[in-house]
Amino acid sequence: MTTETGITVSPRELRKSIREGGLVRPTSGMAPGFVQTNLAILPEKVAFDFLLFCQRNPKPCPLIEVLEPGQIEARATAPKSDIRTDVSMYRVYESGELVDELPDLSEIWRDDYVSFLLGCSFSFESALLNNGIKLPHFEQGTNVSMYVTNIPTIPAGEFSGPMVVSMRAIPQEKVVRAVQVTSRFPSVHGSPVHVGDPEAIGIKDVSKPDFGDPTKFNPGDVPVFWACGVTPQSVAMSSKPSIMVTHSPGHMFITDMRDEDYSII
Amino acid sequence: MTTETGITVSPRELRKSIREGGLVRPTSGMAPGFVQTNLAILPEKVAFDFLLFCQRNPKPCPLIEVLEPGQIEARATAPKSDIRTDVSMYRVYESGELVDELPDLSEIWRDDYVSFLLGCSFSFESALLNNGIKLPHFEQGTNVSMYVTNIPTIPAGEFSGPMVVSMRAIPQEKVVRAVQVTSRFPSVHGSPVHVGDPEAIGIKDVSKPDFGDPTKFNPGDVPVFWACGVTPQSVAMSSKPSIMVTHSPGHMFITDMRDEDYSII
Repeated sequence: MTTETGITVSPRELRKSIREGGLVRPTSGMAPGFVQTNLAILPEKVAFDFLLFCQRNPKPCPLIEVLEPGQIEARATAPKSDIRTDVSMYRVYESGELVDELPDLSEIWRDDYVSFLLGCSFSFESALLNNGIKLPHFEQGTNVSMYVTNIPTIPAGEFSGPMVVSMRAIPQEKVVRAVQVTSRFPSVHGSPVHVGDPEAIGIKDVSKPDFGDPTKFNPGDVPVFWACGVTPQSVAMSSKPSIMVTHSPGHMFITDMRDEDYSII
Repeated sequence: MTTETGITVSPRELRKSIREGGLVRPTSGMAPGFVQTNLAILPEKVAFDFLLFCQRNPKPCPLIEVLEPGQIEARATAPKSDIRTDVSMYRVYESGELVDELPDLSEIWRDDYVSFLLGCSFSFESALLNNGIKLPHFEQGTNVSMYVTNIPTIPAGEFSGPMVVSMRAIPQEKVVRAVQVTSRFPSVHGSPVHVGDPEAIGIKDVSKPDFGDPTKFNPGDVPVFWACGVTPQSVAMSSKPSIMVTHSPGHMFITDMRDEDYSII
């Protein structure tokens, strides 16, 4: 993140600001080049099944780090972090229902909580932008369009459900490059799951996303679909675990890892 | 696998032969182009920790499929298979000690057994051979050289220990290509972990492997090291789980998946 005086702030400093309550807003654009993650916290009782679900569905559920029961520090990807305080806003769900939104989990933390950090699209969007591929939702200042598809995930234990995808309108002549550059990042959703025909993956009207905002197409733009990190949350939620904690939409966990640490070549 | 009459036998037919006891020998060279896996079976009680260990150490522990507790069919990668019978020889360890070697697990199977199928080096060795890179241990008809290194794995629960690597002597002018072609297969160990200096990773004498046979170097050959599927077994064993079942060395599980299904690009 660059401050008004042009000084870059490190992920660790950003987490500190967030921890101290000084930075309660969506993290898009903060610490460019560093990996931000989705967060899902579940009780140990269902953690094996959820970990298995992620292993079986790596495109929608790319695991960046999984903490052990009760562990609060993401030792591998964000040393000295505290998962209870270093996200600026959390959501608490009981049996699949949103019951609370709060900036700190210290009061409700339990020793059997297992935290899952899952890759998010910011990383591969950087890769697209670095390759001169403009993103309509950036240009338009809207949220990316997301859809529930007819693509099934592979179930694990009580977890199952359709894949959620995000869509970006890509100029026809950039589609091949978009596939190439995102393929380098399998840990953050990787290559698209579909190019071209929304109906082929069960999307009836591309102008009516299930989540996020509609995308304005320019002439010649092709809809390109990537597996979306909303999938594991929606799948977990639909299994109605006794308790589940997530980040609030857009309020991601910022790690010390660089996007390029996750490129496969 | 090609029979004497030149007819190719499918992975499913091979598993059937193995199941019926007609094919009790190492599987190297069978069903070329199809993914073979290491097998580790552990009780549910330690399965989350072992799954977490694999997630944290994907290079030595590339998960191809994980079965749910008691599940015997590898539904995703080998439909209609039976993990209790479709490996031609198994080893049983109690508290880290080898207590039995047997061709069928039906008698000792338990409903709390979780089976882990882990990628093996056959897949990336095919990629090397397809690219004109000869493998000395193939030419010499010996086992690949394997070493315990000073590279630590990331612990999970009670599982921890050093990484085991396999070494291939690669002609200097082929080293870059060897890195490139194996990088395409992150699910089967992927790119090398080290090129060049054995001592840098704690190997004192490259002519004295800890497992397998010594490798004869030709002038100009460079030692190239890949993470080895022996790692998860050695790590699991050193934690002395009450019971652990594995394949016998060389007697792999043959899946229906093609090597190319696991190439990332």
